[in-house]
Amino acid sequence: MNNKIRVGIVGYGNLGRGVEKAIAHHSDLELVAIFSRRPPEQVNAQGKVVSVEEIFAYKDQVDVMILCGGSAQDLPEQGPLYAQAFNTVDSFDLHSHIPQYFAAMDAAARQGGNLSVISIGWDPGLFSLARLLFASVLPDGKSYTFWGKGVSQGHSVAIRQVPGVRQAVQYTVPVPETVEQIRLGATPTLTPREQHHRICFVVPEVGADLDTVENSIKTIPGYFADYDTTVHFITEEQFAAEHTGMPHGGFVIRTGATDPIHKQQMEFRLDLDSNPEFTASILVAYARATYRLHKAGDRGARTIFDVPIGSLSPVPLAELRKELL
Amino acid sequence: MNNKIRVGIVGYGNLGRGVEKAIAHHSDLELVAIFSRRPPEQVNAQGKVVSVEEIFAYKDQVDVMILCGGSAQDLPEQGPLYAQAFNTVDSFDLHSHIPQYFAAMDAAARQGGNLSVISIGWDPGLFSLARLLFASVLPDGKSYTFWGKGVSQGHSVAIRQVPGVRQAVQYTVPVPETVEQIRLGATPTLTPREQHHRICFVVPEVGADLDTVENSIKTIPGYFADYDTTVHFITEEQFAAEHTGMPHGGFVIRTGATDPIHKQQMEFRLDLDSNPEFTASILVAYARATYRLHKAGDRGARTIFDVPIGSLSPVPLAELRKELL
Repeated sequence: MNNKIRVGIVGYGNLGRGVEKAIAHHSDLELVAIFSRRPPEQVNAQGKVVSVEEIFAYKDQVDVMILCGGSAQDLPEQGPLYAQAFNTVDSFDLHSHIPQYFAAMDAAARQGGNLSVISIGWDPGLFSLARLLFASVLPDGKSYTFWGKGVSQGHSVAIRQVPGVRQAVQYTVPVPETVEQIRLGATPTLTPREQHHRICFVVPEVGADLDTVENSIKTIPGYFADYDTTVHFITEEQFAAEHTGMPHGGFVIRTGATDPIHKQQMEFRLDLDSNPEFTASILVAYARATYRLHKAGDRGARTIFDVPIGSLSPVPLAELRKELL
Repeated sequence: MNNKIRVGIVGYGNLGRGVEKAIAHHSDLELVAIFSRRPPEQVNAQGKVVSVEEIFAYKDQVDVMILCGGSAQDLPEQGPLYAQAFNTVDSFDLHSHIPQYFAAMDAAARQGGNLSVISIGWDPGLFSLARLLFASVLPDGKSYTFWGKGVSQGHSVAIRQVPGVRQAVQYTVPVPETVEQIRLGATPTLTPREQHHRICFVVPEVGADLDTVENSIKTIPGYFADYDTTVHFITEEQFAAEHTGMPHGGFVIRTGATDPIHKQQMEFRLDLDSNPEFTASILVAYARATYRLHKAGDRGARTIFDVPIGSLSPVPLAELRKELL
């Protein structure tokens, strides 16, 4: 008899592919199917691919559905739809829309008697958890979140819309002098410019005026105008050879005082070769927790703040207490 | 009407004093009394001090008792005794005795209809949480725990028992070359010697033979024989001026692979001016969680693995989702 937790994947982009890889690292999880909008024969996956139109036929064959669609277009529609039929985990990451998305998911999941854990990843996700833990333990203090060195998709897309740009990638990089100051225990108020640099690698269109392109990028409001931005022009070959990976990382750090002379510092740091594969690994661990909490009677929507860390592991709690505590 | 969570402190050593300070940082918590074995008039505290013999008279006046006794002598006896009458939080830290202590606390708390959260601190505690989280997200990897630079009480006590030693303190320090290697993503198997240095500051007795004292320290089995140990002889004045603080810290780090070419690294780091005050700060946040989980119906013994991070904060979950996620 098969006692594995049966997992489905909805959407097969970078994140969905990462989830498929991650599931293979867990012997108590089993991939039932990948649900895609593309014709299944056009999807090059290891696992079984099924048209998303058939997803509801899998209601009794999937314990947890991992939703790998985008937060802007896909999840607001897919999330509540699938939460009525399945336990779900997703990485919804539009910060300002989280309360609204949570409410929709909560209603849908309750209606179906299911559990939906939303906004799982590293930010929102593990970084949120660190921010909350740190502030709870050291209420008299100040937290900072630094991102990078890593690729920001949003900023890369913004550059690509500048006339004269053929291809581009943007790396967000913490300002080293600021990081040093914070790690030494200072708690200043920082402007965006003091906190991160923005480094752009741009393949220009043939004949483009490079000064104009550079200036257009550096003055994009919201994305670059408030930062020190560096633009490097490179060839298509250099781009293909050096800038197609998706490294990322960063850290949450808090310095707090427990009395007038004692400072205490907490830091949670990530250094990632592949941003989507790491996010996928978090989703898969939380899929296990979702299954278990649902089995224990939990219904509706939850976030990373609600899930006990003990429920992420396949190891029984008594053994965890003995071996890891 | 007073809606604060009513907290009691049992034991008023370094940890108990830290808890008293920490409670003052939380406006939703109120210190009811400090319970001490010493005559109350001999205890120099800000808060009300009561003889521990009267503790059971406070059954309806305290929501959570924070047990600040030692793990070797006090908690094995006090823990189960008070868990029958109160919700409790403690920092029981004898790793090998945790299963046994958990069982005793679970039985006592259930009998009294209470909740007891045990082994709360930073190791065991937050470091345990990091080890479990990291291993759950990156099952194909290797974790390391480094302690220090910080004072090890156990090693300091061991030195003080060497003939010719008047006063002593021992600092545990991670080996810098090893740390560098691990942060670069290596996953070697390390001996104790490769992982930590032991630095001792010793005030010798007048007339003691320093070579003999140094050699006796360096060869103490279990404590120093397996490490590179440095012994510095200092004066009583130097000791008083430079070595009476209780700094500590360290980090849990894991490098894992999500596929053959992508490595991912997670790290949780602490840098503490005062070890007991930081441990106290964690205990106080978990006292709030204990109160809430008990109110929600949870009974028996629990550990840091069972407590959702959201329950540590005084801020309502809806607001946390909006502001911190």
